Amino acid sequence: MHSPKFFQELIEQEIKKISFSNQPPELYDPITYMLTLGGKRLRPAVMLMANELFGGHPFAITNPALGIEMFHNFTLLHDDIMDKAPLRRAKPTVHTQWNSDIAILSGDTMFVKSCELMMQVEDKFLRQVMNLFHKTAVEVCEGQQLDMNFESRNDVSIPEYIHMISLKTAVLLACSLQLGAILAGASKADAELIYQFGKNLGIAFQLHDDILDVYADSTKFGKQVGGDILSNKKTFLLLTALATAHETQKAELDNWLSDKKHKPSEKVKAVKGIYESLNIRESAEEEMGKYFFAAMQSFEKIQADESHKEVLLKWAEQLMQRES
Amino acid sequence: MHSPKFFQELIEQEIKKISFSNQPPELYDPITYMLTLGGKRLRPAVMLMANELFGGHPFAITNPALGIEMFHNFTLLHDDIMDKAPLRRAKPTVHTQWNSDIAILSGDTMFVKSCELMMQVEDKFLRQVMNLFHKTAVEVCEGQQLDMNFESRNDVSIPEYIHMISLKTAVLLACSLQLGAILAGASKADAELIYQFGKNLGIAFQLHDDILDVYADSTKFGKQVGGDILSNKKTFLLLTALATAHETQKAELDNWLSDKKHKPSEKVKAVKGIYESLNIRESAEEEMGKYFFAAMQSFEKIQADESHKEVLLKWAEQLMQRES
Repeated sequence: MHSPKFFQELIEQEIKKISFSNQPPELYDPITYMLTLGGKRLRPAVMLMANELFGGHPFAITNPALGIEMFHNFTLLHDDIMDKAPLRRAKPTVHTQWNSDIAILSGDTMFVKSCELMMQVEDKFLRQVMNLFHKTAVEVCEGQQLDMNFESRNDVSIPEYIHMISLKTAVLLACSLQLGAILAGASKADAELIYQFGKNLGIAFQLHDDILDVYADSTKFGKQVGGDILSNKKTFLLLTALATAHETQKAELDNWLSDKKHKPSEKVKAVKGIYESLNIRESAEEEMGKYFFAAMQSFEKIQADESHKEVLLKWAEQLMQRES
Repeated sequence: MHSPKFFQELIEQEIKKISFSNQPPELYDPITYMLTLGGKRLRPAVMLMANELFGGHPFAITNPALGIEMFHNFTLLHDDIMDKAPLRRAKPTVHTQWNSDIAILSGDTMFVKSCELMMQVEDKFLRQVMNLFHKTAVEVCEGQQLDMNFESRNDVSIPEYIHMISLKTAVLLACSLQLGAILAGASKADAELIYQFGKNLGIAFQLHDDILDVYADSTKFGKQVGGDILSNKKTFLLLTALATAHETQKAELDNWLSDKKHKPSEKVKAVKGIYESLNIRESAEEEMGKYFFAAMQSFEKIQADESHKEVLLKWAEQLMQRES
């Protein structure tokens, strides 16, 4: 069984080999740019790992794995336009480096290219693979729309939030794992179990992200600590704080949400103070643990070589302990 | 053999049956809105006609035909954002009625939905159908990017223009016809011939559009006559005028292109005057005739029932005589 790192590097090499010298360059240069910005290549790597877990030939499915990475980058490209994000991995976003029209259209093209890569599977798997891929793609769009809706809503519940991150983040991880399983000829039961493992792990992963944003070690975290607080992002932490605060804490929190006078560092410090008095970090870690536990419950039931399972398990545990 | 009108109405009925009551409504309402704005349903209708021409069962392929219409409407939705168009079929465009973010994301969802509809073919046709569909989708994106590039270029040649409209408009018509043929089990030769028929007809169709924009009867034309002139759109007419004008005519035309003083009607009248002195209408009709003739040459070679072919031929001829 190869390591996650091995597959991540394999995907990185495969991405470098993809060359879009097609015309017009205004359409294809942003695709190359986006794909070579870096990233953990998590989704294609776990797809290959799941494939090997069930006795597949991961080196034979690098193209559909690239399809997953291409799709993920397409969603980032379009999300960046909607979020008006100036930077992605410390480099200008496509709509900043070129313009929004080019970002829309090169994103559309990436999406088609991801379908073309995903099609490169054996005939016997084609329909099942594409059905899962399309279903997931629709869900990711639904998740992004819900996320945008939440920005202007003041009554987002915790279950709604979990549903949103499940669609926006978790189902693509689940889909990647299940694709790897399907392409190895795994049983229907195992394919379903690894999907549930991925979905719950994906939710735990996003909750960990929410926690890291506030509590990461700034020397190790790649981004600005407290970024979600500064942008009033409705994360699990903020929503839980709003739901559990008593009257004066709630008023204080609301003040900070509409504050424009204070320095960013003061706002982060004050909101963290409120979180502390409400034990928000503990609540978030508990919720994260709940989903991680659910992931483990599915994982244990998977019928596969235990030493192979160990590799995937270690990876999942490390994912929950990452500091950036 | 059913008439084009019959199939257009069939598609119209099928579209009314599609219901997107999924959540969130912000994602799905724009899709329903876009699909029910109307339109000629030309592409799915000719797909069904081509299918019947080759002895297929058109009523069994209404879902992939809807996929073509869904894809076409997705491209219109995203094009409208890029063109900053306020209206589509006299109604507010999606990005005007909702906003650009919603237009991007509901467009993305429409594209996935078009793939899902297109997948609803027999297994034996699946790969060929999806490969053609994806290839065409990429070409349409390339055509749209070239069209945007042309806006800021002053050296667009006629062959470049023909290449652009071929990608942006003609290949989707060609693809629709070929899909109908493939799904009827037509021979490879016939599938290729009907593709070439559609591609050349599509180019002639767009040239006819360019001519109509300037010379349509305003009482029959659905849009403002002279719209392309007012927006300085680099149509076949303008590009030919710029290429064939002598020095003083060229200077006069350049003046009108940068004019901001005169009334719209004065600009249209003046540019039409220059076109007249250069016989631009005749040049455009000649070019249109050239592509229509090429379409006919491919069509004649198709091996199919002559009385069936007659129906498709009549439709093609009417397409070239339409007044709106």
